[in-house]
Amino acid sequence: MARHDIDVPTLVAAAREGSPRAVARLISLVEDASPKLREVMAALAPHAGNAHVIGLTGSPGVGKSTSTNALVAAFRARGQRVGVLAVDPSSPFSGGALLGDRVRMQDHALDPGVYIRSIASRGHLGGLSWATPQAIRVLDAAGFDIVLVETVGVGQSEVEIVGLADTTIVLLAPGMGDGIQAAKAGILEIGDVFVVNKADRDGADATVRDIRHMISLGDRTEPGLWRPPVLKTVASAGTGVDDVMEALDKHVRWMSDHEELTRRRTLRAANEIEAIVLAELRSRMGDLRGGQGIEGHAAQVVTGVTDPYAAADAVLADLT
Amino acid sequence: MARHDIDVPTLVAAAREGSPRAVARLISLVEDASPKLREVMAALAPHAGNAHVIGLTGSPGVGKSTSTNALVAAFRARGQRVGVLAVDPSSPFSGGALLGDRVRMQDHALDPGVYIRSIASRGHLGGLSWATPQAIRVLDAAGFDIVLVETVGVGQSEVEIVGLADTTIVLLAPGMGDGIQAAKAGILEIGDVFVVNKADRDGADATVRDIRHMISLGDRTEPGLWRPPVLKTVASAGTGVDDVMEALDKHVRWMSDHEELTRRRTLRAANEIEAIVLAELRSRMGDLRGGQGIEGHAAQVVTGVTDPYAAADAVLADLT
Repeated sequence: MARHDIDVPTLVAAAREGSPRAVARLISLVEDASPKLREVMAALAPHAGNAHVIGLTGSPGVGKSTSTNALVAAFRARGQRVGVLAVDPSSPFSGGALLGDRVRMQDHALDPGVYIRSIASRGHLGGLSWATPQAIRVLDAAGFDIVLVETVGVGQSEVEIVGLADTTIVLLAPGMGDGIQAAKAGILEIGDVFVVNKADRDGADATVRDIRHMISLGDRTEPGLWRPPVLKTVASAGTGVDDVMEALDKHVRWMSDHEELTRRRTLRAANEIEAIVLAELRSRMGDLRGGQGIEGHAAQVVTGVTDPYAAADAVLADLT
Repeated sequence: MARHDIDVPTLVAAAREGSPRAVARLISLVEDASPKLREVMAALAPHAGNAHVIGLTGSPGVGKSTSTNALVAAFRARGQRVGVLAVDPSSPFSGGALLGDRVRMQDHALDPGVYIRSIASRGHLGGLSWATPQAIRVLDAAGFDIVLVETVGVGQSEVEIVGLADTTIVLLAPGMGDGIQAAKAGILEIGDVFVVNKADRDGADATVRDIRHMISLGDRTEPGLWRPPVLKTVASAGTGVDDVMEALDKHVRWMSDHEELTRRRTLRAANEIEAIVLAELRSRMGDLRGGQGIEGHAAQVVTGVTDPYAAADAVLADLT
């Protein structure tokens, strides 16, 4: 099938029958912002909404890949299919991924119940807010029971992940000053489950205490007051993973009991719609650049004939 | 004059007569995204376009504040009025400025020919792209001959400054591995004048050589081939500042000779218009959030009744 001749219904059907190639193709269409995306999303819509979307975030070095690996194994042991999206923050300059050496979770490479994909987060189309929810939608509609979104906890992505996941796991490690850093980074507000990994190292208990203390100080406002558990793991040895799985189950039940799942998913969909609207408007704006459109107004601003607001009004009229 | 009762023509006239309070008030209106901004910008438009807008950027520790201070003194010695905007990248979380300890250029505190203002760069309204050009416009229209925009060279702001300034000075220091970092950060493409400050330290000549070498490798495409000079200063002692002033003068002449000044200002105005258009569209979108607008569509996406693109179409129709 040539690239210019994509048969969307066939592709979606193949993805739903478990073809990793079809899933990969669909996510590539998302990454490439293909003109076919509209048709793809319409075809996926009736099938989405069944996956438990779990975000996993943390600073570099806390063991995200190892933890993802351990969780994938635990879900597989239950017979659940797992899709993993590893979101790489790309340099705005090189466009390249920082994480060339990331652990690729080789353990699951041959398991047809696991699909693993790295996607770039900082494209020109609005980063996490744009491509990631659509990639999640692909995996969800393709029938994965669990969609695990792993982001490097650097700056904005920690916050953005909240809008993406049903449940957010914040991963920490002892002795990295993570407690204080977490508080600074607003990470306390975004975690539904906190996990101190590498808990066989010195300082693990102190880190757990720090996080618990800070959680107790925060004013979280979820209905029915979900108290985020703070757990310990040694993901490389599989230790503590059962507790994390139990916490994830509890969080899903709590969300269902408090209509929180619907609230979060509606918020996520609203953000996704808004991102698409903005991308469309930017694209229309791009069409107005270069020729007589915006540059013509800009020239009048430079000579003082008009001001930027009046010019913006004129552009808005052209846009819409 | 109460805050709800701003008389824009009086305020603009006072700013043009040299009142620092009026200038401060106008920039606060910009920072606050006041509803009066539209009227302010219309009143300023006929008076803008005379200032030489100079951007000064560099990594923390290279001596930006000291260099700004030295340049301000040099411009003042010529009798030129100088407005300084120090752009502080704010945390997306705290909203606060990182640079509480910045040197506030006390030397010029009592000089009525100098106006110094810190402004936040990372507000919700689009950072540098939104507030800074309007603050520049205020100082320009208020009659400052020179507007110096100092940004901390961290990530994106280095690149954004290019769209803001007529002339961009990139400041470096010896022995900070700045050469290689500069290349990585794309800083080589944005500098019109390179200054190695703290040139009394070891390694200054090597840094100059590195930068010259890298510039010679780059393919800069300015008409008439402006070759960015690489100068040395010890800003704290005033050494080399004359050379920088001469380079700034040369760059202005070169821009005038090659219609580059108009090209850059038109680009800047176009970016400013685009930022205002996007802010307006975001605001309209915000009005559609919360009620039955976007959330209503989002709920249908969650239940699979519709897909995000179809929902986005509906929102676009509501927006325009």
